[in-house]
Amino acid sequence: MIIDCHGHYTTAPKELQTYREKQIAGLKDASYVPSKGTLHITDDQIRESLENAQLKFQRERGTDLTIFSPRASAMAHHIGDATTSLHWSEHCNDLIHRVCGLYPKNFVGVCQLPQSPGVAPANCIEELERCVNGLGFIGCNLNPDPSGGHWTAPPLTDRYWYPLYEKLVELDVPAMVHVSSSCNANFHATGAHYINADTTAFMQFLTADLFKDFPTLRFIIPHGGGAVPYHWGRYRGLAQDMKRPPLGALIRNNVFFDTCVYHLPGIELLLKIVPIDNILFGSEMVGAVRGIDPETGHYFDDTKRYVDAITWLTESDKRKLFEETARKVYPRLNARIPA
Amino acid sequence: MIIDCHGHYTTAPKELQTYREKQIAGLKDASYVPSKGTLHITDDQIRESLENAQLKFQRERGTDLTIFSPRASAMAHHIGDATTSLHWSEHCNDLIHRVCGLYPKNFVGVCQLPQSPGVAPANCIEELERCVNGLGFIGCNLNPDPSGGHWTAPPLTDRYWYPLYEKLVELDVPAMVHVSSSCNANFHATGAHYINADTTAFMQFLTADLFKDFPTLRFIIPHGGGAVPYHWGRYRGLAQDMKRPPLGALIRNNVFFDTCVYHLPGIELLLKIVPIDNILFGSEMVGAVRGIDPETGHYFDDTKRYVDAITWLTESDKRKLFEETARKVYPRLNARIPA
Repeated sequence: MIIDCHGHYTTAPKELQTYREKQIAGLKDASYVPSKGTLHITDDQIRESLENAQLKFQRERGTDLTIFSPRASAMAHHIGDATTSLHWSEHCNDLIHRVCGLYPKNFVGVCQLPQSPGVAPANCIEELERCVNGLGFIGCNLNPDPSGGHWTAPPLTDRYWYPLYEKLVELDVPAMVHVSSSCNANFHATGAHYINADTTAFMQFLTADLFKDFPTLRFIIPHGGGAVPYHWGRYRGLAQDMKRPPLGALIRNNVFFDTCVYHLPGIELLLKIVPIDNILFGSEMVGAVRGIDPETGHYFDDTKRYVDAITWLTESDKRKLFEETARKVYPRLNARIPA
Repeated sequence: MIIDCHGHYTTAPKELQTYREKQIAGLKDASYVPSKGTLHITDDQIRESLENAQLKFQRERGTDLTIFSPRASAMAHHIGDATTSLHWSEHCNDLIHRVCGLYPKNFVGVCQLPQSPGVAPANCIEELERCVNGLGFIGCNLNPDPSGGHWTAPPLTDRYWYPLYEKLVELDVPAMVHVSSSCNANFHATGAHYINADTTAFMQFLTADLFKDFPTLRFIIPHGGGAVPYHWGRYRGLAQDMKRPPLGALIRNNVFFDTCVYHLPGIELLLKIVPIDNILFGSEMVGAVRGIDPETGHYFDDTKRYVDAITWLTESDKRKLFEETARKVYPRLNARIPA
């Protein structure tokens, strides 16, 4: 079985975006009373939005199941306040739940959290519990920078985040560290902000004892771990200079990278350098890069092709990468879809 | 000849730091009148600070010349105002000038700029001219984020920076894109902020037409280009999706990466992926990582060993990497040290 740990609903029916635009317009209107409002999307619209996109690619590429969450760039926690974020998150998560209901063999849900700059992460617990206990979701996306490129929140290792971590541990669900769009002109979202956040989170984990406090807390750092595998020597050296544990020990049960790296040499480096037990197959499909690579004739984000091209990967390693590690990191998956 | 394009004076005599601490203390004292003040460091102190560090490593590793600039993490443009930064930069640059005077075969200077948050980059022109025309420096370090991790300046492609670029072009000197320490708790300086800035700058260059306006402007993106070579497929795909030129054409005469990547697989990826004409040898020695890699028994930052270990690199490629491209990017080097 091949599990893709990283997919977003980037192809949702346009009604979702229309709702969001109306919500944002309301923020500028002093007479507007925030309300959750309604979203009218039919099952057929949902089917149509997936059949020629994620489902088609699953079939073509030979993957089975996508761990599926709302569009990351659209979370935009920096817009409005916690109520804005809550209404938006509830709709986005409900839509993912409908996707998973229509295609229970193809998708399993991961939720967006109603984060908001300056608002304690504990404020997200209720929506997390609703999604996990009520909707059967198996994880969440956690934005380390709800300010959208201004980085005003404390580091992920700060006690500020601990109440949320306590709930993640209690529910036994992991968080993918995933920023959203950037409202800082310095950072292109998918080309800089995403990758920077991955690198930043790793270095935060390296320099603190978070996992002594939460031995079973698990994070997925997407996009192949940002810059980390390429600079693995730098990180090994920094850890050594700072008298921190070796990287392998530091990340063992707690930090995992996906394979969202869009060329073979990058995937080769990742699989050569990072312990196989800390890598999950992922493609971010349909996502950041939508085109076909003229050098290969295949989609840039068809990451399974790169993995398949690596001849030195053992069958046991492939099973871990494609399925077993995902089941360890997202244990609630096992109840939904047995191995 | 082997030219290391990336060295900082991280081992300067302690008087430099004492000066800086006094300067910073003055900022908190309402009665203090800012003045440049003096710095008493003898030639022998300078010799001593280098003989057992940079010079020893040059000899041991078989490199000839280091393009040398003040300690990057100590630039700290976010401290004080433009006057603070000017006094500090003048002292730091003067000290580099003395190093180059004492060891003219081993070091050639690159200057720190007196940047300050919210102050127009044109304010740096006078110090740049003093260093290039007066002290014989061949380039500068340009901080894309003088706020130290808050990223409040416009992107490097914004017209905000153009007056400084006009001077760089006129003087025919390149800029290394190099942030300093971070006063944002999210970003570890050498483990996150440096690498993020590299990735960020590349994406800024990818998305704008800066080099149409300045066809001869040249930037070195250090630390192996941040995350970029590892995610080369992502950047190729993003460029294609955005109908931008192919990466090779986009960077050809304007953007260069160094080899400050501290393990062999990372260097292999860099040299395999990025056009050889866009890579300069660099080590960042003595810098971010000071230890010995227990896996190899050699210093992490002995990047020449990694390059030497790559058997498929041709002699012609090695000449480019070690010397010829540096002479193209820093043409003022040729007058100081002929090929």
